[in-house]
Amino acid sequence: MAAATVLAARLCVARRAVAVAVAGPRGAQSRRERNEPAMNDALHRPGHRGRHRVRGAAAVTDGNEVAKAQQAAPGGAAPTIFSRILDRSLPADILYEDQQCLVFRDVAPQAPVHFLVIPKKPIPRISQAEEEDQQLLGHLLLVAKKTAKAEGLGDGYRLVINDGKLGAQSVYHLHIHVLGGRQLQWPPG
Amino acid sequence: MAAATVLAARLCVARRAVAVAVAGPRGAQSRRERNEPAMNDALHRPGHRGRHRVRGAAAVTDGNEVAKAQQAAPGGAAPTIFSRILDRSLPADILYEDQQCLVFRDVAPQAPVHFLVIPKKPIPRISQAEEEDQQLLGHLLLVAKKTAKAEGLGDGYRLVINDGKLGAQSVYHLHIHVLGGRQLQWPPG
Repeated sequence: MAAATVLAARLCVARRAVAVAVAGPRGAQSRRERNEPAMNDALHRPGHRGRHRVRGAAAVTDGNEVAKAQQAAPGGAAPTIFSRILDRSLPADILYEDQQCLVFRDVAPQAPVHFLVIPKKPIPRISQAEEEDQQLLGHLLLVAKKTAKAEGLGDGYRLVINDGKLGAQSVYHLHIHVLGGRQLQWPPG
Repeated sequence: MAAATVLAARLCVARRAVAVAVAGPRGAQSRRERNEPAMNDALHRPGHRGRHRVRGAAAVTDGNEVAKAQQAAPGGAAPTIFSRILDRSLPADILYEDQQCLVFRDVAPQAPVHFLVIPKKPIPRISQAEEEDQQLLGHLLLVAKKTAKAEGLGDGYRLVINDGKLGAQSVYHLHIHVLGGRQLQWPPG
C-alpha cells in the first residue's frame, strides 16, 4: 500500500461536510455539531501522521445508530450511502483503493483511528456472502491489517463486522470496521 | 455445514469444567463459580435448540480480560490454550470442524450465542497474517457466517477480531468471535 496510492486515491476538499454516521450513538454527531476542528482533530490523533486529514466528511446526523439499524432496510438491491462513496458522488477521506475494495475513515469515529474497508462488489451483509466471495473476503481482511499498520496501530486494534438488526448494521453494504488508538473494552458492544 | 458434521465433531462429556475465558470481564467467572447449571443454561438460551449443550467447558477464571490481554505474551512460538483445544487435550463444545478450522463455544459468553472460529494453522494474530493466508481468512469468515445461520442468528450478529493489547487479544492464536441472540450495542467496546 504505497503512500502514492493512498494519496492518489484521496478525494479533494469538499465544501460541505455531510456526516456518514455509519454507526454509534457516541459519535453520531457531526464534527460541526461538536464544534470540533476537523482538520486539527485529524492532525492530533495519537499515531496520526497528518497526511490523512479529513478533507471531505459525509454525514447523517441522527443520534441513535442501533435504532437506525433496526429500521434499516436489509434489501440487497437498493444503492446505499457507500455506493455513493464508491462512485464519488459523496466525499470521503479515502485511505486506500484497489480493484476490489475501498478504505475510508468513519466520520463518526468511535476511537482515535476508525476506518472502514468495503468491497466494491455490493455484498449487502456478511450473511449474504457466497462461496465465490472467499478470495475477496480474505483480501478485505488483509487490506484491513495492512491499513492498520499504515495507520500506526502496532499496539493493537479491533475488527468488527455487523450483520443485520441485532448486529447493529445500519448500512447494507458489507463493511469491516477497524478501530484503534485506544484500549478497546469487553464485551464488544 | 451439515448437522451431522457438527454433531460428529462435538466432543464427549468432560468431567472437569475448565473455563477458557477468551475475553471479557462480564463473563470471566466459570459456570461453577456462578453456580449456573451448565446444561440447563445452554438449553435455555434464546434461539438455542438444545442440541449444542455445553458438555465440556475449558476455563481460566481470572476476572479482568482487558488487563490479561495487556499482559499476554504476543510471541508466536508458544502453544496457546487453543492449541490444546485443537489437539483435544482440553475439552470444548465444538460446533464444527474441517481441515482448515475449528469452531467452538466461548465459555465466557458475552451474548446468548457466542462462539469462536479459529484456523488450525497457528497464526498468532490478524496483524501477522500473510498474503498466503488470503484463502484461509476468507474461509474463516464463510464458516463464521454459516455457523451463525446454523445457530439461528437470522436477525443478525457481530463478528469481532481482536489484535494485540489495545484490541484486548488475550490468546495469541487468531480467532473470530461471533456474538448474537441479543441486540449488540455501539461502540463495539
